[in-house]
Amino acid sequence: MFTRRNFLKTSALAVAATAVANPVKLFAQVGKAKGGSKKLELTFQPFEAKYKYAFNISNFSRTSTPGVLTKITYDGYTGYGEASMPPYLGENTDSALAFLRRIDLGRFKSPFEIEDIMVYLEGLSTNNTAAKASVDIALHDLVGKIMGQPWWRIWGFNPDTVPNTCMTIGLDTEEVVRQKTLEAAHFNVLKVKLGMDEANDKMMINTIRSISNTPIFVDANQGWREKHYALEMIHWLKERGIVMIEQPMPKLWLDEAAWVTERSPLPVIADESCQRLTDVSKLKGAFHGINIKLMKCTGLREAREMISLAQALRMRLMVGCMSETSCGISAAAQLTPKMEWADLDGNMLIANDAFKGMKFTDGIIKLSDKPGIGAEPV
Amino acid sequence: MFTRRNFLKTSALAVAATAVANPVKLFAQVGKAKGGSKKLELTFQPFEAKYKYAFNISNFSRTSTPGVLTKITYDGYTGYGEASMPPYLGENTDSALAFLRRIDLGRFKSPFEIEDIMVYLEGLSTNNTAAKASVDIALHDLVGKIMGQPWWRIWGFNPDTVPNTCMTIGLDTEEVVRQKTLEAAHFNVLKVKLGMDEANDKMMINTIRSISNTPIFVDANQGWREKHYALEMIHWLKERGIVMIEQPMPKLWLDEAAWVTERSPLPVIADESCQRLTDVSKLKGAFHGINIKLMKCTGLREAREMISLAQALRMRLMVGCMSETSCGISAAAQLTPKMEWADLDGNMLIANDAFKGMKFTDGIIKLSDKPGIGAEPV
Repeated sequence: MFTRRNFLKTSALAVAATAVANPVKLFAQVGKAKGGSKKLELTFQPFEAKYKYAFNISNFSRTSTPGVLTKITYDGYTGYGEASMPPYLGENTDSALAFLRRIDLGRFKSPFEIEDIMVYLEGLSTNNTAAKASVDIALHDLVGKIMGQPWWRIWGFNPDTVPNTCMTIGLDTEEVVRQKTLEAAHFNVLKVKLGMDEANDKMMINTIRSISNTPIFVDANQGWREKHYALEMIHWLKERGIVMIEQPMPKLWLDEAAWVTERSPLPVIADESCQRLTDVSKLKGAFHGINIKLMKCTGLREAREMISLAQALRMRLMVGCMSETSCGISAAAQLTPKMEWADLDGNMLIANDAFKGMKFTDGIIKLSDKPGIGAEPV
Repeated sequence: MFTRRNFLKTSALAVAATAVANPVKLFAQVGKAKGGSKKLELTFQPFEAKYKYAFNISNFSRTSTPGVLTKITYDGYTGYGEASMPPYLGENTDSALAFLRRIDLGRFKSPFEIEDIMVYLEGLSTNNTAAKASVDIALHDLVGKIMGQPWWRIWGFNPDTVPNTCMTIGLDTEEVVRQKTLEAAHFNVLKVKLGMDEANDKMMINTIRSISNTPIFVDANQGWREKHYALEMIHWLKERGIVMIEQPMPKLWLDEAAWVTERSPLPVIADESCQRLTDVSKLKGAFHGINIKLMKCTGLREAREMISLAQALRMRLMVGCMSETSCGISAAAQLTPKMEWADLDGNMLIANDAFKGMKFTDGIIKLSDKPGIGAEPV
């Protein structure tokens, strides 16, 4: 059964056992930035993001997410990036490291050649989206620093139009859900992971609603396996002040999704159904909008294109994250002015954040004036 | 009848009569850039672009294009922009000046707020696309200068992938067409304006082909009024080494365009049919691609979005221009790495270029490292 205490125990043990070193130190061993060298140099290292609380979705739970931290140096500037790889993405530390080892950035003259670099990475592998994102993020950080501006500003976005981020409350026992809801009292939006079974799903919502009127995003994580049931649940949720619903049914069920979306009183958003830019137009009609995550879509460059396309198709926009450090979260935050909803609590849920960047206490996203992605190693 | 000599005479007279002043001088009268003032200040002045040769399309001809030059200052930086308004756009000097006078950039804190500024301009008028472009271009110039980079680089494009620009040969007498073809001998691509009548159209192509094997873009300027005839002409052109065809039929004939496009042995590109971002998805299927012009689409920001959308829809891309100074042409050139075809000879066709920027002798587009749009007043 789900008990928070057991998971915390496991988690604490794991942290002690793997002895995750300070990433800056590890980077220092690999090589210092050579001030003035006009050569692109990529270094990287594994990094395991440890959860404060175990993370339970549908039928499994986890206490950490494997990842890789990247660093690209050029002309005395340093850009940082991150790959976060929850198992369902099909990537792991070994596959990401193997992919990163194959990259030769020396063939590019400047970090500004992001478009060509991303095409080159695509040519090396059809998967490894998180590893690709770790390069994309480091390049954006580098280029933003060279230009002295954060990316939200380079893109011409208005920083005053950002939504609040939600705080996630995972599947758990009634007692733990109540406790987490109280701890999240300062947030303006909660996110609840459902998709278990009807009794559990309704218990989660009823427990939260017994002590809080805060608006809720629901993420069903493909958990509902019948369209009429999904629609019925959405109606039930609508009556309880739920704002929108992510991925009610399996990712390939687009006809069923369209049936539900057409009838749904709440916005229905594609998460697992939407990975890359090429997915977006196929989802028009099947969902009201998409949840963009850097680790799914290979980073900021493709995310920016997805925004353009979704806007043109009049699809609604959400940005999400994995369990990431403030590196990945600060990168994703650059996109928030174009977002209707944000789920960027990943760095608040981990115990060993290796970066200092944008952190959204109480869920209020305040974009930073710092150049690049706005995060530095702690 | 079309004789080049008559038009040159008229043109020369017109230049003398309107006494187009040096734009820099005029700008100086309006007010110098206040170094350090963190206030956005917009100034502007009319500018008439005088043709070297009269410009004949379908059933009318012109010797100049009215325009407006804009300047935006902020924090000691100066950005330049331009509106070029061929009569068919529905804009003229008076309407552009009236529109520009209504703009209060003082309500924006920084030139980086381009997205909000463009939304604000859209709220002031549903038309005035060229006047809006003159503000958009000046803002991009300003922001690029603040960041110290040209826009092609900020967008992450590869400058080595630019196409050649064509040189336009307008409808004219056989003798003049032969003369212009000889003068354009160094260009790798020619553009021929057709759409008059069958005898004239074929004379144009036959005359050029009698002395040159250079690939040709054909722009029919909506001139063909029957789909079977359009398709027949395209087949005839295909046999004579024509590369692609722009706007064979009237802009609203989308069903007919789709019929022709489906059967055409040459790429069929929308010009008049494609003005703004919102047009693009409607043209999927009706054309193989679109011709983006800053003066139609309100400038670089919307043009960049059109590129993203067209790419996602797998539509082919061309960039075009009006009769513009090197200000507007240098701005449009920033987009060329994403273009399959370029028609940016506008500054080479005018006699009174008020800017020094990118000029494409022999049609080879060489992007500049200069920040912003890469053009300064002469």
